[in-house]
Amino acid sequence: MRARGAGIVIGSLPTGVHNAITDVSGVSVGQRSLIRGQGPLVPGVGPVRTGVTAIRPHPGDLFRSKVAACVHRLNGFGEVTNSEMVRETGVLESPIILTGTSSVPRAADGLLDWLLARDRELGISTWTPAPMVAECSDQFLHDMRGRHVTAADVAAALDTASTGPVAEGGVGAGVGMSCCEFKGGIGTSSRRIPEGYIVGVLVLSNFGRREHLRIDGVPVGLALRDWAPPSEHPDASGSSIIIVLATDAPLDPRQLERVSVRAGAGLARAGGLHSTTSGDFVIAFSTSNRVAHEATSRVIEQRLVPEAIRASEPGSPPVINQLFQAAIEATEEAILNSLFSAQTLDGRDGHILQALPIPETLAILRAHGRLT
Amino acid sequence: MRARGAGIVIGSLPTGVHNAITDVSGVSVGQRSLIRGQGPLVPGVGPVRTGVTAIRPHPGDLFRSKVAACVHRLNGFGEVTNSEMVRETGVLESPIILTGTSSVPRAADGLLDWLLARDRELGISTWTPAPMVAECSDQFLHDMRGRHVTAADVAAALDTASTGPVAEGGVGAGVGMSCCEFKGGIGTSSRRIPEGYIVGVLVLSNFGRREHLRIDGVPVGLALRDWAPPSEHPDASGSSIIIVLATDAPLDPRQLERVSVRAGAGLARAGGLHSTTSGDFVIAFSTSNRVAHEATSRVIEQRLVPEAIRASEPGSPPVINQLFQAAIEATEEAILNSLFSAQTLDGRDGHILQALPIPETLAILRAHGRLT
Amino acid sequence: MRARGAGIVIGSLPTGVHNAITDVSGVSVGQRSLIRGQGPLVPGVGPVRTGVTAIRPHPGDLFRSKVAACVHRLNGFGEVTNSEMVRETGVLESPIILTGTSSVPRAADGLLDWLLARDRELGISTWTPAPMVAECSDQFLHDMRGRHVTAADVAAALDTASTGPVAEGGVGAGVGMSCCEFKGGIGTSSRRIPEGYIVGVLVLSNFGRREHLRIDGVPVGLALRDWAPPSEHPDASGSSIIIVLATDAPLDPRQLERVSVRAGAGLARAGGLHSTTSGDFVIAFSTSNRVAHEATSRVIEQRLVPEAIRASEPGSPPVINQLFQAAIEATEEAILNSLFSAQTLDGRDGHILQALPIPETLAILRAHGRLT
Amino acid sequence: MRARGAGIVIGSLPTGVHNAITDVSGVSVGQRSLIRGQGPLVPGVGPVRTGVTAIRPHPGDLFRSKVAACVHRLNGFGEVTNSEMVRETGVLESPIILTGTSSVPRAADGLLDWLLARDRELGISTWTPAPMVAECSDQFLHDMRGRHVTAADVAAALDTASTGPVAEGGVGAGVGMSCCEFKGGIGTSSRRIPEGYIVGVLVLSNFGRREHLRIDGVPVGLALRDWAPPSEHPDASGSSIIIVLATDAPLDPRQLERVSVRAGAGLARAGGLHSTTSGDFVIAFSTSNRVAHEATSRVIEQRLVPEAIRASEPGSPPVINQLFQAAIEATEEAILNSLFSAQTLDGRDGHILQALPIPETLAILRAHGRLT
Repeated sequence: MRARGAGIVIGSLPTGVHNAITDVSGVSVGQRSLIRGQGPLVPGVGPVRTGVTAIRPHPGDLFRSKVAACVHRLNGFGEVTNSEMVRETGVLESPIILTGTSSVPRAADGLLDWLLARDRELGISTWTPAPMVAECSDQFLHDMRGRHVTAADVAAALDTASTGPVAEGGVGAGVGMSCCEFKGGIGTSSRRIPEGYIVGVLVLSNFGRREHLRIDGVPVGLALRDWAPPSEHPDASGSSIIIVLATDAPLDPRQLERVSVRAGAGLARAGGLHSTTSGDFVIAFSTSNRVAHEATSRVIEQRLVPEAIRASEPGSPPVINQLFQAAIEATEEAILNSLFSAQTLDGRDGHILQALPIPETLAILRAHGRLT
Repeated sequence: MRARGAGIVIGSLPTGVHNAITDVSGVSVGQRSLIRGQGPLVPGVGPVRTGVTAIRPHPGDLFRSKVAACVHRLNGFGEVTNSEMVRETGVLESPIILTGTSSVPRAADGLLDWLLARDRELGISTWTPAPMVAECSDQFLHDMRGRHVTAADVAAALDTASTGPVAEGGVGAGVGMSCCEFKGGIGTSSRRIPEGYIVGVLVLSNFGRREHLRIDGVPVGLALRDWAPPSEHPDASGSSIIIVLATDAPLDPRQLERVSVRAGAGLARAGGLHSTTSGDFVIAFSTSNRVAHEATSRVIEQRLVPEAIRASEPGSPPVINQLFQAAIEATEEAILNSLFSAQTLDGRDGHILQALPIPETLAILRAHGRLT
Repeated sequence: MRARGAGIVIGSLPTGVHNAITDVSGVSVGQRSLIRGQGPLVPGVGPVRTGVTAIRPHPGDLFRSKVAACVHRLNGFGEVTNSEMVRETGVLESPIILTGTSSVPRAADGLLDWLLARDRELGISTWTPAPMVAECSDQFLHDMRGRHVTAADVAAALDTASTGPVAEGGVGAGVGMSCCEFKGGIGTSSRRIPEGYIVGVLVLSNFGRREHLRIDGVPVGLALRDWAPPSEHPDASGSSIIIVLATDAPLDPRQLERVSVRAGAGLARAGGLHSTTSGDFVIAFSTSNRVAHEATSRVIEQRLVPEAIRASEPGSPPVINQLFQAAIEATEEAILNSLFSAQTLDGRDGHILQALPIPETLAILRAHGRLT
Repeated sequence: MRARGAGIVIGSLPTGVHNAITDVSGVSVGQRSLIRGQGPLVPGVGPVRTGVTAIRPHPGDLFRSKVAACVHRLNGFGEVTNSEMVRETGVLESPIILTGTSSVPRAADGLLDWLLARDRELGISTWTPAPMVAECSDQFLHDMRGRHVTAADVAAALDTASTGPVAEGGVGAGVGMSCCEFKGGIGTSSRRIPEGYIVGVLVLSNFGRREHLRIDGVPVGLALRDWAPPSEHPDASGSSIIIVLATDAPLDPRQLERVSVRAGAGLARAGGLHSTTSGDFVIAFSTSNRVAHEATSRVIEQRLVPEAIRASEPGSPPVINQLFQAAIEATEEAILNSLFSAQTLDGRDGHILQALPIPETLAILRAHGRLT
């Protein structure tokens, strides 16, 4: 079940074929879920409720053919490895791995394994790639101290990455995540703008308190505040969201940063407060602006969407505004998909994350004049 | 008519006494509206549809007793003079003047007049103050080329600044402004958090297309898209919003910047897209963190709201999160107040900005389960 | 007398024809010096020791054909108007005016006059240009409270802007400026990199205490600390430097920002400490990356210097590193030229800024193994 | 041999007792050098030329008593893990580990081991610490693909951290590093300002080409360009420098960032060009501004150095300027110490990094009027 399948339509732009980040041609996603054990927490042993989600910007050699990219901080209580490298160079040279907070170093090392194995010159005649790993905390359900993600898990996620539909909810990095105190995790959505370009978003949702949740502007979370109260309030300290945004529009890093700001607006509409201990980041890239690892000519030709007004046919907003709107809509819907697709899951110490109750949710929406 | 008077309640925190930025003790607001002439635009002559809004952080000598402050860029297509100065020093030493875009230099010079007249040492034994002027474009109704704001207008706004209720809508700098293609301008709101602190917001609203407007999450603008179409679509190139946020919570510039990010979330909820040619800024200050122009001791003692979790009584969110929520709610409501308070106004070349039609708006809200 | 004429060679790259910012094809500079009166300060009357320096990036209509640009803050105790606009859009649409601090608003208004007069659509069918004015304080010699720069002065500087050699020292905006407690002001220099591109720098120097001054690494200022002590120490509060950097290398705003960081390194080598009340900024632009005010096609083609390594012939550093080196060298030499070209000048209240004593300086350099 | 022992005096401020970062009370440094094998590179086996340097801001529990901190990017071609966390929160909650680029993930995981072992609540009732690891590339001498740093190496560096003198040159993380094509690595220095505070700097130097090197302003590198040419030019792609700056002056993160900018000026004076593939960062912290992991009162009292002018006795520069000068001097001298202390070292494939030839260097300095 996805939000749109339930009749919820966010915004006015049409989605891509799969309503997923993979609607951006060449982008693939692979996931590895780790769910083992039950009962009381035994640090270092389990229960294990974590995983890995890998996003590959294109099927080729990303280190040799990098993509224009940015990392935008909405609230920096979290980690995106090598964010500075992306800011300085304007390019991404590594797939993006999402995982649980404590597994970041091991995931980064596994990603480095995978990259080094593909290119024998790395670390010898040129630099070692800057692996990009972003995280949310799965502390509520998971044995965080155990750091159970292995290099093999990372490789499995990368090697099984595929285009087409993307599994959502409590899968991959999303296994242990909550969203507004419901079961959250992976969600994705996309928008096609009149100009023809696609914007795809994949989120790892793990933010917010129940009362924050808004669905298409309706204060659903507030209405559900007393519904089957959670066994225990997940500690606000674990809240975060990672937003990965892909587009085939030819954008440079500055423009991608502009689009990323609007992804934050989509989060705000879904109820995001950026609470103080929330690690909220947007990682954005353009598949159509590639940069070779080594220059072969004295000047690079780059194609860009013009930001000057009156770019397109009369009456239509500037292309960049269309992209802004697409980023807002796709982010908001990706968050909803992470909720609508998730199943109730228990974890350590009897902690339970309830799935968003769909019938009750739809009833609230109907009472607010939606789904009609 | 204000939004709350019409039954609209944004969020859950209580407002201050006046539901205005002036609920922050010591903050005063003064305005000067310039409305002269009618008919076809005669550049340099009129019609005149502009004005000045002045915000004074405290009644004392701001240059000698500066306030902790930040300038946060949401979308930088606009001007906030001396923003760099605030970023480097972390303090604001000038009242804030809002006006129309083309009048920024003259307003800044008028503000400088006013400041220099109050302190004979400025420019002689110490530096001249860094005047802060922010703007939106009033091009749709106004003779922008005329730059009609004078030093006397600036002084009048400053000298008549008062605490208590604040005039809203098409007054002061708001005279020529539109919001989502309706008449916009000045709006204000405030929130008191459980910890006792007040957050007050004043906006100069001038952003968005009609279909962007959302009221408490309801897509009112979309529903009103075909209502009494505007005589002519205001050029998207003029859109902007300035958000001035005041608080008596002891915050330093880094913390004020964090709060400002959330003001942006309030804008997003009201429909803000940050369109490409929109100058969207937050100027925030704390009245309880003062910095003397000249240090009189070797160490400054500063009080700060702790960001560490579990600051307050059990169950209550961290104080900083309360402030974040207050910023979102007050910003969203201030924008609504700028619409609800505004009257239809015509300007140059027969351009008309219709006031938001209140009965129709309320009907739409009722159909969406609000105002019940 | 310029530094190079005295035998001082900064770095290893060759200069352009004029060793000036005007070596970048199309860049022109115009200046207007205001020197009137003598004796005790009469606020609002004089003595007047100020002026205007105008830099025009190209001879055409800059508003309609903008240049890629950045504003980089080294220490933000100062003003560069519309810096946010440049950061958001990545382009500069106004000539750059340098002047004394208190004259910024009037100079900005004069610049707006000049721009509006050239294009009747501004403020009517499109936005009014964002005027760029940067400043240093001329408080030590000048009647700052008087704000003596007029719109006519700004127009005169713009209208007389010319390519070719640039007057240096106490001219234009440099009239009232000091550098390391010697007479400073306008200085310029340029470098041609092996790849063929030119980097030109013009500074308005007004920073530092005497002991900070370093010439080609030699602590000249320290050695001159007791030479003819200044009548009175210029207040450290007035120190600042504006660095304007032009290049014909095709760079985008991110790359220009990278180059600007290195201009800061050149300042550091000349002795720059970025003292707390110093407004140190780099404004950089590329004449070969133009952006039309209104897009005429759906995609912009942009040419860029590749940052990937091995761009050029074997053994030669990457082009971007050549540009970095050029920025360092040209900035350092431009600062020296502002000193070597300046004449002793007196101002208000008997304040005197001594010119750098050239024979003594050269003797110190010789004692340190230079000029041989 | 240290620079000062050779007669080189950088700047005018006195050093602390050890002329080391450990002069800041409570700061300790521990190092682990890994030097194994010789001959041709066998990826994954050796030769091993790498190590770990640990900086601990205070002897207590840093997670429970964090220090005010900042991470400042000079050129972001490199990694400082969790830099965003420090930027958002303004505090550092982890010791700082320096190592070779490819070992960052394993070092971060080892640091996490060490931190988790010290506090059983981490990852269970509160978050897991954000480990801070920074790096330079040791690719020229070392088997980077091997990632030879283990958790035990990290623990050894942390557990043996001591106050007092610090080993310099090719030790710890410095084992495989070069500086201006000479053997570089770890260097440290400190300055005491008149106000009484200490600024200590430790660098991991790995930047620059030979001709860039400047010692106290003398172009020593240029003079040594043809001295015993290196077996092979180290690839410019590996160049970087990490600057760790500690102070007991009570500074907040904004002020630490200001001081960090000046550390960059010190690097510039030593010849730093920030070449395009150089990862140049400053990590700065204040030992006297602590923030508890959990707030115990509703308001935090913070002490700060005033930035307002005339803070101290007449004639003396503002305290913050004294700190700026200290940062410049200590950074420049720490870089020199990394060179003067280093020994010639060979590594993979017969690559050799020559130590800076001290007698020749001193002769050049003498010829430039120094050491007299």
